[in-house]
Amino acid sequence: MIDFVVQKRCGSTAARTGRLQTPHGVIDTPAFMPVGTYGSVKGLRAEDLETLGAQVILSNAYHLWERPGLEVIREVGGLHAFMGWRRPILTDSGGYQVMSLAERRKIDDDGVTFRSPLDGQHRRLTPETVIEVQATLGVDLAMVLDECVASPAERAVAAQAVERSQRWAERSRPLAETLAGGLLGIVQGSVYPDLRGEHARRLVDLDFDGYAIGGLAVGESKEQTWSAVEAAVVELPEDRLRYVMGMGYPSDLVEAVARGVDLFDCVIPTRHARNGVAFTSSGSLIIRHARFETDSRPLDPDCGCPACARYSRAYLRHLKLRGEMLGGVLMTLHNLWQYLDTMRRIRHAIASGALAELRAELARAGAPNGRD
Amino acid sequence: MIDFVVQKRCGSTAARTGRLQTPHGVIDTPAFMPVGTYGSVKGLRAEDLETLGAQVILSNAYHLWERPGLEVIREVGGLHAFMGWRRPILTDSGGYQVMSLAERRKIDDDGVTFRSPLDGQHRRLTPETVIEVQATLGVDLAMVLDECVASPAERAVAAQAVERSQRWAERSRPLAETLAGGLLGIVQGSVYPDLRGEHARRLVDLDFDGYAIGGLAVGESKEQTWSAVEAAVVELPEDRLRYVMGMGYPSDLVEAVARGVDLFDCVIPTRHARNGVAFTSSGSLIIRHARFETDSRPLDPDCGCPACARYSRAYLRHLKLRGEMLGGVLMTLHNLWQYLDTMRRIRHAIASGALAELRAELARAGAPNGRD
Repeated sequence: MIDFVVQKRCGSTAARTGRLQTPHGVIDTPAFMPVGTYGSVKGLRAEDLETLGAQVILSNAYHLWERPGLEVIREVGGLHAFMGWRRPILTDSGGYQVMSLAERRKIDDDGVTFRSPLDGQHRRLTPETVIEVQATLGVDLAMVLDECVASPAERAVAAQAVERSQRWAERSRPLAETLAGGLLGIVQGSVYPDLRGEHARRLVDLDFDGYAIGGLAVGESKEQTWSAVEAAVVELPEDRLRYVMGMGYPSDLVEAVARGVDLFDCVIPTRHARNGVAFTSSGSLIIRHARFETDSRPLDPDCGCPACARYSRAYLRHLKLRGEMLGGVLMTLHNLWQYLDTMRRIRHAIASGALAELRAELARAGAPNGRD
Repeated sequence: MIDFVVQKRCGSTAARTGRLQTPHGVIDTPAFMPVGTYGSVKGLRAEDLETLGAQVILSNAYHLWERPGLEVIREVGGLHAFMGWRRPILTDSGGYQVMSLAERRKIDDDGVTFRSPLDGQHRRLTPETVIEVQATLGVDLAMVLDECVASPAERAVAAQAVERSQRWAERSRPLAETLAGGLLGIVQGSVYPDLRGEHARRLVDLDFDGYAIGGLAVGESKEQTWSAVEAAVVELPEDRLRYVMGMGYPSDLVEAVARGVDLFDCVIPTRHARNGVAFTSSGSLIIRHARFETDSRPLDPDCGCPACARYSRAYLRHLKLRGEMLGGVLMTLHNLWQYLDTMRRIRHAIASGALAELRAELARAGAPNGRD
């Protein structure tokens, strides 16, 4: 099981620091989880992630269930042993990925049937099977199966997804005892604050180890995002972990933290890195730009990452242009350091009463190149 | 300049250990150079190469001259600064690559003109320009431009290449003083021992800092390889570095060492790694094979590399099958460790009079899966 203790609270916002004890160690919150969908954070060794200070990573139960398959992971002693990663792991159930298969999947009240993009075979996920899969993986934080709808979605569609997700959550809850770690419910409701609030209340009645807010940061406006987060958080218990799934840019993370959120994951730092976009304290750099051709400075002179310790923008540009895999590795190290360091600074700012300043600073740095 | 001192000699073969002092540090020989053609050993950071114990790496003057270009490397302070690699670098002149362009290049007595595969523009290499390029890069060991012919080649073709390579070597030699490091001549002569011997003698008359044997390990038989190596080495001075270019499997390296060779480079360990072939003390493993599906052992239980310290065959197989870049990184760390450790063992065996045993052991392990 898991144990979450709130440690410090911000004087003027809902932000808090906390300490989450899991079977594989402690996570200081607010925390960011690097994403390793297929059992690796692309290009990085487990020891690299330790060096960066990652205390938890996210993987995907559905993808691992497909490949290499549960038998393999069971045989080698669980997901931690398989990956060589000794710290906590959270797995998403894979509901989001299956839902996004669109015409390849069919949802009914019992679960979802889909044709695998890998081999064309029909497979089926139910609330029960996804818990069983995550129990076999041996993860520290497991997620229930939910129905994740487009955001924004029509109100009727969103309401139906809440109903189905709630019934699936009810079936999942009793299975929490089969898990080594904790089980988190997922609040749906798209951009409708009343649906978000209602769903949060009904999930809280089921008494999960923590609560995620799903289906956000996928197309709705910022105002809709924060209304949805606020409507859910206000219904969630103070003493439980809160996790916004799939978010976001550094400026988003601090905004969510200020609204009482403890946990995040996002592919942005790693995917942007491989695409040649570096996050720095003074905005983002598109490394292939000609202005970096002979730039012997590191990506960010204030950064403590292994890439900035040794490699220049000119070299990283060259690696990117030549398609050398080292470029992706170094950029990933850098961007994850930036994210994890942002979380360290957020925790410190909450503890020292300086969150407002950090929030303003991150808002100024903004989304890379004004994009969002 | 460079300074080479032979330290220990094998009692029963031509093998010797040595110490090569270069502007960027010492290389203990016999030595193997990991290949970083475009300025990176694919997937590895400079600090990874240090961890593996690499004392020198090979890069390619022609490729770097094309991209990012000399102006860029000059501007950022030379190739070492550009790459973040502080130890010695040898660059090949690029002659081999240009010669292999076949119908895209035209050789005359003054040099070679070719259409760049990168942008279709015409470019020209001469003996003088390749030295100038390597002087600008600031490398520790530079190579002359030579004419490298297919192996085996017709005798007349081989003889003509020797003549041209010799004339180019004569033009290159006076430019050695423009280099921070040493300049190596290259013995040609294909599979003809008399041509090899004659070319070696003529190059020795020019008094290079060391001598390479080029155009081998590209299609000739093993007997032809060793005849050519022996015919060249017997003419080379005892007190100068000897380097066989582009060789080979571990069993080849020890055979060449026994014939008096000090230095090697080869893409085999790194390219095989990315293709999923691991070298181990008991032969090679093709990691995608189904028999590794649930194999929780490291690639080689006797290996000291960072991959074997933490990751299983089952995980490496999964990474390979999923195309995860971490697979290539870990396999490369492993294979280079194996090669560099083989060189450490060779040096130790020479010093302790146990080379015959090691030679027999490496011959038994042989080329991976009997291929060659």
